[in-house]
Amino acid sequence: MGKTLIKGGTVVTAVEKMEADVLVEDGKVVALLGREHSIDGDEVVDATGKLVIPGGVDVHTHMELPFGGTYAADTFETGTRAAAWGGTTSIIDFAVQTVGESAMDGWEAWMEKARGNCAIDYGFHMITGDINDQTLKEMELLVREGVTSFKMFMAYPGVFYSDDGQIVRAMQKAQEDGATICMHAENGIAIDVLAEQALDRGETDPYYHGVVRKSILEGEATHRAIKLAELTGVQLYIVHLSAHEALDEVIQARDRGQNVYAETCPQYLFLSLDNLGNGFDGAKYVCSPPLRDGAAGHQERLWQGLRTNDLQVVSTDHCPFCMGDHHAFGTQKQLGQGDFTKIPNGMPGVEERMRLIYNGGVAQGRIDVNRFVEITATTPAKMFGLYPKKGTIAVGSDADIVVLDPNGSHVISVDTHHMDVDYSAYEGWEMVGKIETVMSKGKVIVANDEYDGQPGDGEYLPRSTSQYTI
Amino acid sequence: MGKTLIKGGTVVTAVEKMEADVLVEDGKVVALLGREHSIDGDEVVDATGKLVIPGGVDVHTHMELPFGGTYAADTFETGTRAAAWGGTTSIIDFAVQTVGESAMDGWEAWMEKARGNCAIDYGFHMITGDINDQTLKEMELLVREGVTSFKMFMAYPGVFYSDDGQIVRAMQKAQEDGATICMHAENGIAIDVLAEQALDRGETDPYYHGVVRKSILEGEATHRAIKLAELTGVQLYIVHLSAHEALDEVIQARDRGQNVYAETCPQYLFLSLDNLGNGFDGAKYVCSPPLRDGAAGHQERLWQGLRTNDLQVVSTDHCPFCMGDHHAFGTQKQLGQGDFTKIPNGMPGVEERMRLIYNGGVAQGRIDVNRFVEITATTPAKMFGLYPKKGTIAVGSDADIVVLDPNGSHVISVDTHHMDVDYSAYEGWEMVGKIETVMSKGKVIVANDEYDGQPGDGEYLPRSTSQYTI
Amino acid sequence: MGKTLIKGGTVVTAVEKMEADVLVEDGKVVALLGREHSIDGDEVVDATGKLVIPGGVDVHTHMELPFGGTYAADTFETGTRAAAWGGTTSIIDFAVQTVGESAMDGWEAWMEKARGNCAIDYGFHMITGDINDQTLKEMELLVREGVTSFKMFMAYPGVFYSDDGQIVRAMQKAQEDGATICMHAENGIAIDVLAEQALDRGETDPYYHGVVRKSILEGEATHRAIKLAELTGVQLYIVHLSAHEALDEVIQARDRGQNVYAETCPQYLFLSLDNLGNGFDGAKYVCSPPLRDGAAGHQERLWQGLRTNDLQVVSTDHCPFCMGDHHAFGTQKQLGQGDFTKIPNGMPGVEERMRLIYNGGVAQGRIDVNRFVEITATTPAKMFGLYPKKGTIAVGSDADIVVLDPNGSHVISVDTHHMDVDYSAYEGWEMVGKIETVMSKGKVIVANDEYDGQPGDGEYLPRSTSQYTI
Amino acid sequence: MGKTLIKGGTVVTAVEKMEADVLVEDGKVVALLGREHSIDGDEVVDATGKLVIPGGVDVHTHMELPFGGTYAADTFETGTRAAAWGGTTSIIDFAVQTVGESAMDGWEAWMEKARGNCAIDYGFHMITGDINDQTLKEMELLVREGVTSFKMFMAYPGVFYSDDGQIVRAMQKAQEDGATICMHAENGIAIDVLAEQALDRGETDPYYHGVVRKSILEGEATHRAIKLAELTGVQLYIVHLSAHEALDEVIQARDRGQNVYAETCPQYLFLSLDNLGNGFDGAKYVCSPPLRDGAAGHQERLWQGLRTNDLQVVSTDHCPFCMGDHHAFGTQKQLGQGDFTKIPNGMPGVEERMRLIYNGGVAQGRIDVNRFVEITATTPAKMFGLYPKKGTIAVGSDADIVVLDPNGSHVISVDTHHMDVDYSAYEGWEMVGKIETVMSKGKVIVANDEYDGQPGDGEYLPRSTSQYTI
Repeated sequence: MGKTLIKGGTVVTAVEKMEADVLVEDGKVVALLGREHSIDGDEVVDATGKLVIPGGVDVHTHMELPFGGTYAADTFETGTRAAAWGGTTSIIDFAVQTVGESAMDGWEAWMEKARGNCAIDYGFHMITGDINDQTLKEMELLVREGVTSFKMFMAYPGVFYSDDGQIVRAMQKAQEDGATICMHAENGIAIDVLAEQALDRGETDPYYHGVVRKSILEGEATHRAIKLAELTGVQLYIVHLSAHEALDEVIQARDRGQNVYAETCPQYLFLSLDNLGNGFDGAKYVCSPPLRDGAAGHQERLWQGLRTNDLQVVSTDHCPFCMGDHHAFGTQKQLGQGDFTKIPNGMPGVEERMRLIYNGGVAQGRIDVNRFVEITATTPAKMFGLYPKKGTIAVGSDADIVVLDPNGSHVISVDTHHMDVDYSAYEGWEMVGKIETVMSKGKVIVANDEYDGQPGDGEYLPRSTSQYTI
Repeated sequence: MGKTLIKGGTVVTAVEKMEADVLVEDGKVVALLGREHSIDGDEVVDATGKLVIPGGVDVHTHMELPFGGTYAADTFETGTRAAAWGGTTSIIDFAVQTVGESAMDGWEAWMEKARGNCAIDYGFHMITGDINDQTLKEMELLVREGVTSFKMFMAYPGVFYSDDGQIVRAMQKAQEDGATICMHAENGIAIDVLAEQALDRGETDPYYHGVVRKSILEGEATHRAIKLAELTGVQLYIVHLSAHEALDEVIQARDRGQNVYAETCPQYLFLSLDNLGNGFDGAKYVCSPPLRDGAAGHQERLWQGLRTNDLQVVSTDHCPFCMGDHHAFGTQKQLGQGDFTKIPNGMPGVEERMRLIYNGGVAQGRIDVNRFVEITATTPAKMFGLYPKKGTIAVGSDADIVVLDPNGSHVISVDTHHMDVDYSAYEGWEMVGKIETVMSKGKVIVANDEYDGQPGDGEYLPRSTSQYTI
Repeated sequence: MGKTLIKGGTVVTAVEKMEADVLVEDGKVVALLGREHSIDGDEVVDATGKLVIPGGVDVHTHMELPFGGTYAADTFETGTRAAAWGGTTSIIDFAVQTVGESAMDGWEAWMEKARGNCAIDYGFHMITGDINDQTLKEMELLVREGVTSFKMFMAYPGVFYSDDGQIVRAMQKAQEDGATICMHAENGIAIDVLAEQALDRGETDPYYHGVVRKSILEGEATHRAIKLAELTGVQLYIVHLSAHEALDEVIQARDRGQNVYAETCPQYLFLSLDNLGNGFDGAKYVCSPPLRDGAAGHQERLWQGLRTNDLQVVSTDHCPFCMGDHHAFGTQKQLGQGDFTKIPNGMPGVEERMRLIYNGGVAQGRIDVNRFVEITATTPAKMFGLYPKKGTIAVGSDADIVVLDPNGSHVISVDTHHMDVDYSAYEGWEMVGKIETVMSKGKVIVANDEYDGQPGDGEYLPRSTSQYTI
Repeated sequence: MGKTLIKGGTVVTAVEKMEADVLVEDGKVVALLGREHSIDGDEVVDATGKLVIPGGVDVHTHMELPFGGTYAADTFETGTRAAAWGGTTSIIDFAVQTVGESAMDGWEAWMEKARGNCAIDYGFHMITGDINDQTLKEMELLVREGVTSFKMFMAYPGVFYSDDGQIVRAMQKAQEDGATICMHAENGIAIDVLAEQALDRGETDPYYHGVVRKSILEGEATHRAIKLAELTGVQLYIVHLSAHEALDEVIQARDRGQNVYAETCPQYLFLSLDNLGNGFDGAKYVCSPPLRDGAAGHQERLWQGLRTNDLQVVSTDHCPFCMGDHHAFGTQKQLGQGDFTKIPNGMPGVEERMRLIYNGGVAQGRIDVNRFVEITATTPAKMFGLYPKKGTIAVGSDADIVVLDPNGSHVISVDTHHMDVDYSAYEGWEMVGKIETVMSKGKVIVANDEYDGQPGDGEYLPRSTSQYTI
């Protein structure tokens, strides 16, 4: 590969906004240059009048996740390609250990699924679904393999659920190894009672998924996770925080100086319980935690949390299921006809995160463009040990770069998106700004509305322990 | 001026840590380059194995301040030169309006004092000591002149003090103009009663300065300032926060999403009431707010606040007075023999800030080196409208750059410091790290333990309104 | 006087609800008897099916207060008689020291006004409007005379206002003497700026009185009073708390264990900013703090505070002014035509407190009848050193007793009330419950809708220091 | 039974302190009389110079509780007799439902144990150890039988433990029926992990019982119980609160207006982790929650909570086990030699509560004597539906009365106490005040250091739902 020069743009990082050209060589950024220079590129990307930003880092995706009797609709191939279209150039997916299995085997199985199929670089968290003595030993091995974060569930009893004793054990071990615990914080034991009672009352529509998974029970579980983390001294990262009650707990812990962090997702910033209300069409919007009551102020609190750094990251929790039959995986959302608890949980999103946050955040004036880069790329990379390779535009970093035209526009639609799922949660939404060019490790993979990459472009990302300490 | 190449160092910004060379031309950074390049400089600074960091921005200094019957011992010439020695390349000083005077006249007088005398670039806040209709109009004019922040005092009745009504008026006006209110938050009315009672009891030593200025009264005033800022919608910046009670108020306001910010100073992070306790020698340590009780946990709370961004800036409140006679200004600290309320308030510090925070912060593991840069340079610059000219190392920014040898060392002493004052508050302290080279706008002004600059190198910095929004 | 037997009723105290007869002799309760007894009274009050409760203790009235160029419309004669009609059998009024006067002289002047004129017993707080060395000495003398609480104003600059230094001095002295500081907590300095600006904008109607006296400024002043009380160790009692921001400050102080107490008044529980909105008719509702925005949730928070004992007392702040000319004092509310700041501050209320709280509290299920007695009689008496003489029905206590028919009713109206003022703030309101019989020190002074007392029935109540410690 | 006159004493209730004689007839108080009366009693108790207070109500005892392979050492006969000696005249014990059993059967079994054996009146809470559809139905039946409160355990997995789903179901049902949920709030799942790890490290002494049951885990469980109560709207009562972390959660819930209440016990107010530290002798002090670290400030926070009514009740959690062999139940504390998890949890206390709280509270000036009565008798009675029969001295109430000589004294010792257990937790402690006479339902059962009652004096107390709402 020769040299590429990204010319004429405004380079934006988490801190800077500079009129600079970016010189790329061998997949890396080798120079940031003022306009008055005499360096040529073998290839030139004209970014005049455009923003040149770091490629997005989405730390929460579930490609091909087996769930509820089917699989998440996107494979590593289709899902990472869609990510690339949307300006995301790294993902961290979740390898799964289920009860009775070895965690290491689970990780290797997921490595196998991804290998040779990805459009962009990828790493893994490990879902530790069965904490026992062997798993605790494997956690140490996994950290050495670059899997430095472990996800646990306080929800989904009988599936991924860990009880507080298992959580304590895993936290102790993670703390020893410098690893991070990622927590799905909903009180699943209590929720399952409410869900069963709702079904008994004949409340079977998708809407009731949103009703029974009370925000107070996300708040409770978040508090509990924080206290168990305080007990064990581990670094805690709350995934897909959706409720202001949960945010309040994170804020209080951070005020005390505890190393507690949290992400939210676009669906919690833009959608609400109302979306769940239209009969079975609501199944499109079934995810956990659920979309929240629009009148209760969750959305504005989450935006405020993003502004004040009480929330540090926006990820997607990308986990799509088709409303109709999936060409390969068969019946998906329809499994929950007549019983909302049977609807596979999850929504498509990996392709739209950068657009949605640029729009709702920057274009609508809630955050500035530096903060946009920070929450979509830089902090995710630092939080999970990918920096400085990923998450920024700096000398020596991977040339994962997006050229975004702030004067362009884009309409989200199932007809044009690249995720392998038959609906969009944001159908017809007009986005200010257009993702024009996407470069992964110095190679332009999206440009001129064409995809130029291929499966296998993406490589495994072994990760260091967390580099985020604020 | 030709090109200068800073070679071989690790360039550190608020976010990055990159192995890169820095190319400087015409006073600005024109390129950041990976090691493999063929660009030569006319001049080369060898930074191999060193940190290359942005020059410090000290947003709180008082050169030649008339106070308590004398003047702060450093002139703009001596003070800014000392700043340069210590790796600080920009200051924001305080022009003064006293009762009955025009604010604009005050600013012009201070401009006159600084003009042609400074070693580094300088801007001004305006102390608005007499809020009336004319002053309110002048605030608008001053914003146009690049004075975008106004300082008020809840302390010092009869001197700089403003009552809550004046504060409200000034805040309303500042809010209209997008300006920031800087607040000295101590309840001076209550403190003066306690001080008078102490003197009546014969408690005249410097120590009682620290006793009567209760931390609860800093907390109270901070709360009041925050509430008046909430009333008026203005951006508020608490200067020299010293007490955990005050920090708690800032934390709560920020948790509610209010735009409230605060700085602390090295003296509050490293010194304590004990320093005030040795007879009149304690006069060295008389400043307001006072040094706090070491046993009450203030210091560790302040460090935590710096880590969690509840405190955003470290400044110095540099305002030195000699223990003996000053060669030009005569009797200084001795004015308070037998009456601690007559001791000129203030301590020297502009030269030591970068060293002290690097040591107590980075070397002792409390914060990382990115955060060090952020609180000493980047955020101060953004907070007060100097970015991107100042506060970072980026293409297009002023080449205000410090080469710091992390393996070097330095001993602080009155015998070697460059401030025009006859004692050091940190006498004999050994610092890890050595500030080797200091460049201001592309010109090396300190190198090889020599000062190569001259009065007038420093220029006035008109400032935009605040660029800090987190 | 012989024996009186109150027969057949349900005796209610702050704790008990007992089927008992009450035997009264020589002005005191001498026995509580089960129904099966053979004791006769010389006089019998039949209370069958009725509640027998302690006479109310209203700790905040302003009879004949000179204010804003006129006098509060009720004299001690008319005001205490109206109180009696409404079931209140003790008041604590406010003697006034103005600037330049002796506090002791002020108290004696008020003693003179009351002597021989009152229908019910009365005590005094002292408004210390001029804190100086003499006043501090007089505070001690006043405590010996049974004036054990001192009221200060953070509002009304130039009238009753004390600055924070004066407050600190008075608090220190009160703490030494075991006395209580009563605080009018509004930031009057800031409010006066907002008021002046409103008038400049032509906002002269009574409504703007409610607009400029922001609830956030009551919260601020309450916080400040609490912190100064913490500094000095004094017992603090916030008068006429109206805003949830202020309540939050009281709650936080009490959570920390500080001895901070607060009263609210019926107008803040039942009326709102809307009442101020009808042109100059709004002048009827001008009092300070002002009636609050009904949509902001103040009322329900105050009721909750009464339930949870974060508010301990309901008083009236009775301070009536006529809308038309007063027969003796001339123009009153009309003084503020065209300038809301000139409207005498205050509302009539001493006659309606017991009815309103019984209705809004007990009849509407917000509090039980024991709590009703506690907040209207028992705690006020203990708070201000009148217990056990006043505030309860117990052997040995003064026979200040009210028979209330829970099945009766009453319509509030200017046509039937006994206050010497030409409007009612609650005109036409229907009250559940009827105050049938009112006994003061064993003498029936109201019965059968007749008043049987006479001026001079009421005697001065020297008070001990506070007996309330929860 | 004729009339008894308690003469010359100072009658103290939760509110009053009156110089009055108490006339008792047919087991009830029939009159409170001023000294000047002509009524004679058939029997006279001379209380001159003494306090006449309501008999204590201890709402937390475990007579004959089967636990850990043995039984609590006191039977209903010995335990209630000891209670009487200590001035307690009512208890509420805990009937037990274990897994697989009917709750109703459990209650009947406990009724059988108590019937004819008790010295004083007794009621029951129900431990619902197995929440299922039948249990939920039985809860309703039990409420009708006067069992209006249900106890659940977040501790003791595999024994009494309920998971959050069972707790939700029980809370919903209790809420429907107006019943109260009593909660043992410790995160037993997490504690058991820590305990197992301690044993693995060879930490087997009683001391480690106190170490592994972390106060943060009591705080966590308390928060969770409160949130589940908020979800379901039920009235919640936290039993034996020991940790300031838990108190903070109760305070916050009460600040929000939630109906959450809590008791503490003398052991948490007077003893600490130090008591657990003397080898196996520490087994005497093994109870759950454990005694807390004396240096962490728990005790003073609990006393403050009692003063400010954030804690409403002091009970004992009386559950004694012998250090040596029990004459009837065999090996007790010794079961835990070499394994602290096998030590039966519990301490003797029913006899000493009134003395200890009078001493530590009233005699040492932390609370006044009214508050002493309120937390030991009146509030417990109202909280659990026994008022006005129990908990006060009022016309119509049961004549459960204690004469306490404030000038007397008492030394606590195993040699003189009446509990059937071979040690005292307060051996040799000198108590100010002497419980001289104890009357139950008009019958003097303790006087002149003699016990005059007999098994069967005590009767079952069916209870109404809670009468406490503050």
